[in-house]
Amino acid sequence: MSSVASNTVVVLSHHVPYGRITASDFEVKSTGTPSEANLKDHEIIVTPHYVSVDPYMRGRIVGASDSYVPPFGEGKAIDGYGVAKVVASKSAKFAANDVVVGAGIPFVKYSVLNVGPGSHLEHLLQKAQGPLADVPVEWHVGNIGMPSFTAWYGLKEIGKPKKGETIVVSAASGAVGQVVVQLSKLLGLRVVAAAGSDEKVQYLKDTLKADVAFNYKKASSYADALSQACPKGIDIYFDNVGGEFLDAVLEKANTFARIIACGAISQYQVEKGQAYGIQNYSRVIARQLTIQGFIISDYYLSHYAQFVKEISNYVKKGQFTYKLDVTQGLENAPQALVGVLEGKNFGKAVVKVD
Amino acid sequence: MSSVASNTVVVLSHHVPYGRITASDFEVKSTGTPSEANLKDHEIIVTPHYVSVDPYMRGRIVGASDSYVPPFGEGKAIDGYGVAKVVASKSAKFAANDVVVGAGIPFVKYSVLNVGPGSHLEHLLQKAQGPLADVPVEWHVGNIGMPSFTAWYGLKEIGKPKKGETIVVSAASGAVGQVVVQLSKLLGLRVVAAAGSDEKVQYLKDTLKADVAFNYKKASSYADALSQACPKGIDIYFDNVGGEFLDAVLEKANTFARIIACGAISQYQVEKGQAYGIQNYSRVIARQLTIQGFIISDYYLSHYAQFVKEISNYVKKGQFTYKLDVTQGLENAPQALVGVLEGKNFGKAVVKVD
Repeated sequence: MSSVASNTVVVLSHHVPYGRITASDFEVKSTGTPSEANLKDHEIIVTPHYVSVDPYMRGRIVGASDSYVPPFGEGKAIDGYGVAKVVASKSAKFAANDVVVGAGIPFVKYSVLNVGPGSHLEHLLQKAQGPLADVPVEWHVGNIGMPSFTAWYGLKEIGKPKKGETIVVSAASGAVGQVVVQLSKLLGLRVVAAAGSDEKVQYLKDTLKADVAFNYKKASSYADALSQACPKGIDIYFDNVGGEFLDAVLEKANTFARIIACGAISQYQVEKGQAYGIQNYSRVIARQLTIQGFIISDYYLSHYAQFVKEISNYVKKGQFTYKLDVTQGLENAPQALVGVLEGKNFGKAVVKVD
Repeated sequence: MSSVASNTVVVLSHHVPYGRITASDFEVKSTGTPSEANLKDHEIIVTPHYVSVDPYMRGRIVGASDSYVPPFGEGKAIDGYGVAKVVASKSAKFAANDVVVGAGIPFVKYSVLNVGPGSHLEHLLQKAQGPLADVPVEWHVGNIGMPSFTAWYGLKEIGKPKKGETIVVSAASGAVGQVVVQLSKLLGLRVVAAAGSDEKVQYLKDTLKADVAFNYKKASSYADALSQACPKGIDIYFDNVGGEFLDAVLEKANTFARIIACGAISQYQVEKGQAYGIQNYSRVIARQLTIQGFIISDYYLSHYAQFVKEISNYVKKGQFTYKLDVTQGLENAPQALVGVLEGKNFGKAVVKVD
């Protein structure tokens, strides 16, 4: 591997504080590949198998300094969750051909990463070892990827589901939602799934076995659709969308209902000052609701191993499936991200690099 | 006692779904007093010492059937928390001259109550016995009254305070707020108190020893006032007001902050469709916040005894005080309630009946 112009780098051209992003906010550059000979101590060269394209990345494009993940730099490569191969290493932690997984993987065909003590990647990137050593690489952006873990953690730890309860899941065929639907069924819940196309609704009913699924874009009102779908009210809401749909759920939530505040994709691309104002907040008091937000990256150490064990077991028994929406080629990553933010993906959006 | 026209009954004339109530929405009637001779089994005659006048009562005036407390009947006497004396009894549970405390005490000078098995009062009214037998009657609408218990429960069980954290309390000199401020100081928190008059602010600083207190009506913006008052951000918010102030708190809340959703008095009297829309909901996710509502009546059996023990102990040591705003005479109860909803009370609003 020498420094010839055969590398691909996905760069954010500029921050976009409000409104919709487009592919033209990015630049896909061809550059030279890094040279193994130039590697310093604690550095590795990686090439991704898959990178994960997720709604939270919109927050990193905003550019505000107080986000919970650091903003992408302007004119710099973007990065995210993914699974990559180590091409060369001067780190004691990794060897050539190791599979590494985690956050902080650049959307770059070949990149040099410092993984030494004190580096920002020190705890973000892990070698796929132990029970993770033998799983197919796409599992790391699929069955046991970050959004799947998000679903499992949120449902179990915040949702505290009890058999027979009614759960509502928004963006239900998406990266997180499809896992919530399946786990909820396995736990004996009545599952009401909302999605944004008839095709997704069909999938939710036929394949994921949601008890009720509806196309929220065709609902005359969210409140009516929820009333019809939830004759016994709502006990758990796994919220991926925020905004008006959340407001309607608040109206229909039962006493002691739990709201898992996972995402608010309906609000990520609004224009300045156009955030939807939640009207039914008073229900939080009257119905003794709990609304809890969480950032999954905080729970890898404490919960990830248990998650992998449970999901692997479900997969083995044929009780769990995970639908990927695969975009081929890093150069198409910007369009894939734009699509995710507009709900165009069907299943979990990933980019296959090699 | 005979059936002569010397009774006083505070009646709600009609439901008021939206907007401000006034004293003219009530009627104070003079009627005959009940006769002991006509008492049936399980009935008692009570006369209140004090009745508690509280913001949640606005919800019972709305008239909607899905409130968490049943609506007041139109043309019927209103009722609430209070402390009363048993005048006559045909119940095995109570004897003449017993002091009874709890919810469901009519705003009526002399009233007949069925306290038998299956009656709605069966679990609402309790005899003041054990550690409650010897406390001054006004404690039951004060030190150990419902709002004080609300403050204690919400702060401890939902707020989960840790020494050194910053708590913000709204309506801080009110029935609930004044207790939150004092308990928070006793628990080693940094207390930032907001109230609606300079006199209240002075009291919060001088008597209740809040670290910072400010008049929110004079703040140029709530966000600026909170930034100034909370250089280390906000770890706990005890919310009695909801609306715009809550929205500003969301903006300044630290990671893992807890929001105790106790009340939303700023929203109880808005006109139809004018509920304030919460804009900063996305912070719930980004900051991993927990917002939890609760209705204190559900926690008497499980927690009230412990609460009384702790508060009594603080009072004994001179570490706890409770300011009552006493209105004399049941006939003035409507105006007292109107005042509470407009923030005119200074301390906990109660009506002294005898």
